[in-house]
Formats: sequence, C-alpha cells, structure tokens
Amino acid sequence: MTTSYPKSVLLRENGPREGFQALAAVHPTETKLELIDALAQTGVRSIEVTSFVRADRIPQLADAEELVARLTPRTGVRYTALYLNERGLERALASTTLEVGGFFLLAASEAFLKHNQNRTLDQALAELATMAELFAARNLPFEQLMISTCFGDEYQGRIECEAVLAIVAQAFQRLNGALPAEVTFADTTGWGNPEAVRRLISEFRSRHPGVEPGLHLHDTRGTGMANVLSGLQCGVERFDASVAGLGGCPFAPGAAGNVPTEDVAFLCEELGIHTGVNLEKYIHCATLAEKLVGVPLPGKLKQGGLLKVRS
Amino acid sequence: MTTSYPKSVLLRENGPREGFQALAAVHPTETKLELIDALAQTGVRSIEVTSFVRADRIPQLADAEELVARLTPRTGVRYTALYLNERGLERALASTTLEVGGFFLLAASEAFLKHNQNRTLDQALAELATMAELFAARNLPFEQLMISTCFGDEYQGRIECEAVLAIVAQAFQRLNGALPAEVTFADTTGWGNPEAVRRLISEFRSRHPGVEPGLHLHDTRGTGMANVLSGLQCGVERFDASVAGLGGCPFAPGAAGNVPTEDVAFLCEELGIHTGVNLEKYIHCATLAEKLVGVPLPGKLKQGGLLKVRS
Repeated sequence: MTTSYPKSVLLRENGPREGFQALAAVHPTETKLELIDALAQTGVRSIEVTSFVRADRIPQLADAEELVARLTPRTGVRYTALYLNERGLERALASTTLEVGGFFLLAASEAFLKHNQNRTLDQALAELATMAELFAARNLPFEQLMISTCFGDEYQGRIECEAVLAIVAQAFQRLNGALPAEVTFADTTGWGNPEAVRRLISEFRSRHPGVEPGLHLHDTRGTGMANVLSGLQCGVERFDASVAGLGGCPFAPGAAGNVPTEDVAFLCEELGIHTGVNLEKYIHCATLAEKLVGVPLPGKLKQGGLLKVRS
Repeated sequence: MTTSYPKSVLLRENGPREGFQALAAVHPTETKLELIDALAQTGVRSIEVTSFVRADRIPQLADAEELVARLTPRTGVRYTALYLNERGLERALASTTLEVGGFFLLAASEAFLKHNQNRTLDQALAELATMAELFAARNLPFEQLMISTCFGDEYQGRIECEAVLAIVAQAFQRLNGALPAEVTFADTTGWGNPEAVRRLISEFRSRHPGVEPGLHLHDTRGTGMANVLSGLQCGVERFDASVAGLGGCPFAPGAAGNVPTEDVAFLCEELGIHTGVNLEKYIHCATLAEKLVGVPLPGKLKQGGLLKVRS
C-alpha cells in the first residue's frame, strides 16, 4: 500500500439534512436556518440543507420548501438538498436558492433498497436510466451516484468489494457512457473498516479512472475516523460529514450520525490537507448544534478545542 | 509507507485507573470492583486497576490499598497499578493481587513534567536511574518506560519526533544497557495525528529494534482511532485503552479519556488482528461503566452493537 494524501479535500456538510431528519423531535425552521447560516460562514463549500421526501414519511423535513426559500445566500457556499426520485427533483428545481445537480441513490444491499425505497435492484437501475435522461433533458450535470450500505448491512450481512463494483458496473452500463462525475460510497450503518475502504477505493479507481470516488461514512462502531484516514491515504478528495456528528438514519435502528465535520477537518489539516474550513468557526457551529438539539453530540473537537499553547 | 498489521495485539485496559481518577466524584470501592471484575471476564489480559498516588492529591484513588486487597483473581488476567515513584512502588509491592513490573513515567514536554510531577527533565532522568537500580535489586523486569505528551501539549506546543527520540536516547544512556522491554508513547492531551504517530514509531523502531513500542492514546480531538489505525499499520502490538472511553487527566483541562477499548478491539478484529477479547462481554462492560459513572461515555460500539444480520 502506498499513501497518497490529497492536497485538498471537499467537505460536504450533511448535518442539517442528516441531523434534523434523524431526530425524534420536529425542529422549527428557524432553528435549522440558524445552524445552516452559521455553517455557511465557516468556509465550508457545500451544505445539504434538507431532503425533498414525503412529509408523511419524514415529518421532520416537511418544511423543506419553506426552509430553502428562507436560506441566506453566502459567497462561496453551495446549498444542496437530497432527493430520491423525479418528484423530489422537481421540488428541488423549483427553488431559487439551491444549486441542483444530478443525483441518484442506489444500495449495495438489495434488501436495504427494498426496505427503504421499496424497489428491487432491477427497478432501481431502470429508474437510474430514466433519471439520467431527465438530467440530460434538464441540462443538469450528473454529479453523484451514491451507493448506500457499501460494506454491508443488517439485512444482508457483509458485502464484499466485488459485489459493490458489480452494481457500479451494471449502473454504468445503463448510463451508456454518460457517467456521473462521482460515485459516493456510503457506509450507511457502520459496517466498513479501513481495509474494506482501501480495497473498494483502489479497485474502483483502477477500473473507473475517469470517475471520482467519494465517501459518506457513519461512525456507528468507532471506525468512522479510521475509515476517513484510510480514504485519505487512498487519495479520496470528497467526504460527506456532519457537524458535531449530528444525525443517523431514521430507518436504521442504532445507526449513528456521520463522522463529525470539524473532527474530519481537524484531522485533514493536521495531515497538511487543505479543507478551506475555519476550525474555530466550525467548533462554534458544533457547539451551536448541540445547544439547538439539546442532546450531547459525539464530535470531539468541540470539547477538546484547537491546539493552543497557553500564554 | 508499507502496512504491516500485527497478527495480534495486547490491549491493556486502563479504564478503572484513568476513569475513576478523572471523575469529579469519589466512587465507592464496591463500584470500582464491580467494573474491574466484569472486565476481568472479557478475555482482556491486563487491567490497570488504580494508581498509588498521594490521597491528598487524588482523593478519588485514596482506596487503592483496599481495592487491590479485594480484587478477585481471574485466570489469564493480570492486575496492575500505576505508580510514579519509590513510595508508590513500595505500596504496589505490598499487595498480593497485583503483578508488579518496573515502570517509569517521563514526559516529552518538560513544562508538563514540572507541572505534574514537579521536576526538571534532569531530575526525572536521575530518578529513572535510581528506580532502575531498585527494579534490578528487587528482581523486577523493567517493563515500561512511558513518555507522556509525546506529540505536544498546551505548555510547550507541538513536539517533534526528534525531540522525543532525544529524550529516549538520554533515558537509555542513564540505564547503561538495562533497557525497558517497551517504550510507551503517550498522547496525553490529543496532540497526535496519524503521520506523527507513523514518524515516531518508524524512527523509534529503526533506532531501537530490541525495544517494543507501545501506544497510549487519548481521543481529545477525534483523531484517537485514526492514530490507533496508524499505529496498527506500523505494526504496533501494545495499546492502552479505556472501557467506553472512560477517563481524562485531572491535571489537563478539556482532556478526554483514552480510546475506547471495545472500539479498538472491534477495529482490530475487523482488520483480522487478534485481541483475545470477547466483544459482546466488552460491550456489557462499556454499558456497565456508563451506568456506574452516570454520565454518557464516548465509546461507539456499545451503542452501535456488533455486526449482526437480522434473523
């Protein structure tokens, strides 16, 4: 194994979407906007602010339209929202504050796909082709194909690298060469480990050199930051993360939030990898997130603080 | 960089000492014994149960003698206690339940040494020589030389690899060839990062091939598990850790506990590295620790649970 840290990474802040979706309480739009606007002033370049899903399934995000309408534009910050189908895409496109790109969510675990999106892999692949045509018709760049449960899940158990890459290959075949800019590998419920990350990223890289790999890691079992390190060692340049570690998946019991953005940024900066993020301001956001949701959040840097010498 | 994971690792459980020392409340001996005895049934081979320090400085551990007298011997488990000077060593040796080895604590940050142990580096090195003679006279193997604040601290700032190795060299010179079996590098207040760990371990290895390196890592800023991974990638076989991440240093404000033992064990097992630890039983201990101290503890595995397929 050779280590090839990237020079810089793109951190995508997922906290507002991941967090407010996962919490039992429905938080006021005002609260979400307060956190989002604080995040928008940290230097982070991309913030996923909500998800256009059905309000009856996730009432926590029923205010999606109101929220995006009230976002404060900030220089250098891209606001995005998750969507899972054509209806969601139309809702996203109706906003003037979001920057919408082509996105599609697959799963490596077909059982997970059935459970969460009520479709088979074949159905999902067919829908991928339809959505890709829609992106083309709308002149939207196909930015991200995300594959959830990339290392396994509680329905199907451990999922090997080759099985994930077979799904990627099937997906790419359906796209007739109109490939996404990035394939984002998501460890949805913490089945990943650093060696599995290394294998998947290296194999993907060697087979699809023109497509960027990204990582979306949850820290369910304490391996999150080690998995981030493994991704960095493989040169991965795009990471989803969540302020203070806010979040979890409402459909995956016991699931934890994403790796904490400020902890990932600190790790990167310590390794000489540029993030563009102001750590002091991010710590402020992590503390704010904890205050707003009223429960202790896992991020460590907000407690430990920056490296400072006593004067 | 080449990765050379060890086949197996020795995990030393530090939770009872680190944890009950750091908590504001003084916990009853009974509580400590309950946790220690649960830990002693997990397959972990070494448990640091207390520290022989002055009761007026750390009243939380004033029951050290009573505690060690009441330990239940368990096959395959070694009970140890921390000591920092001759008086502490004598107290440890007076017990029949502890297995006492030669141990000495230095610091890479002289300012930290002055603050916590009220001595200069020269004084500490002189005491090292005296203690080593005592070990020899007592027929105690010199097991561990621990160097705290190996990557920096709030008094002195960042500490480079060469400065740490210069202290190791001075220490070894005082010992006239009677070297310790292990040098344990301690990241006392979370100034370490994976590259700093790699540099220190690799350089130490190349200069002192006959002495084992060990790691004692605190997770103050979210880099703990990434630092563990870096140590494992360098082949380190000895790690201190603390059940559920219990702990922190009472003299270092904002300091966090050690990396959680069960999370480290899970990471190791996922990487195919044998720990000898029963993860299910360790999760039980982590949950017990949280219940006993009555505050949320950072370990993740106790929440996320083992990798299991739904039946």
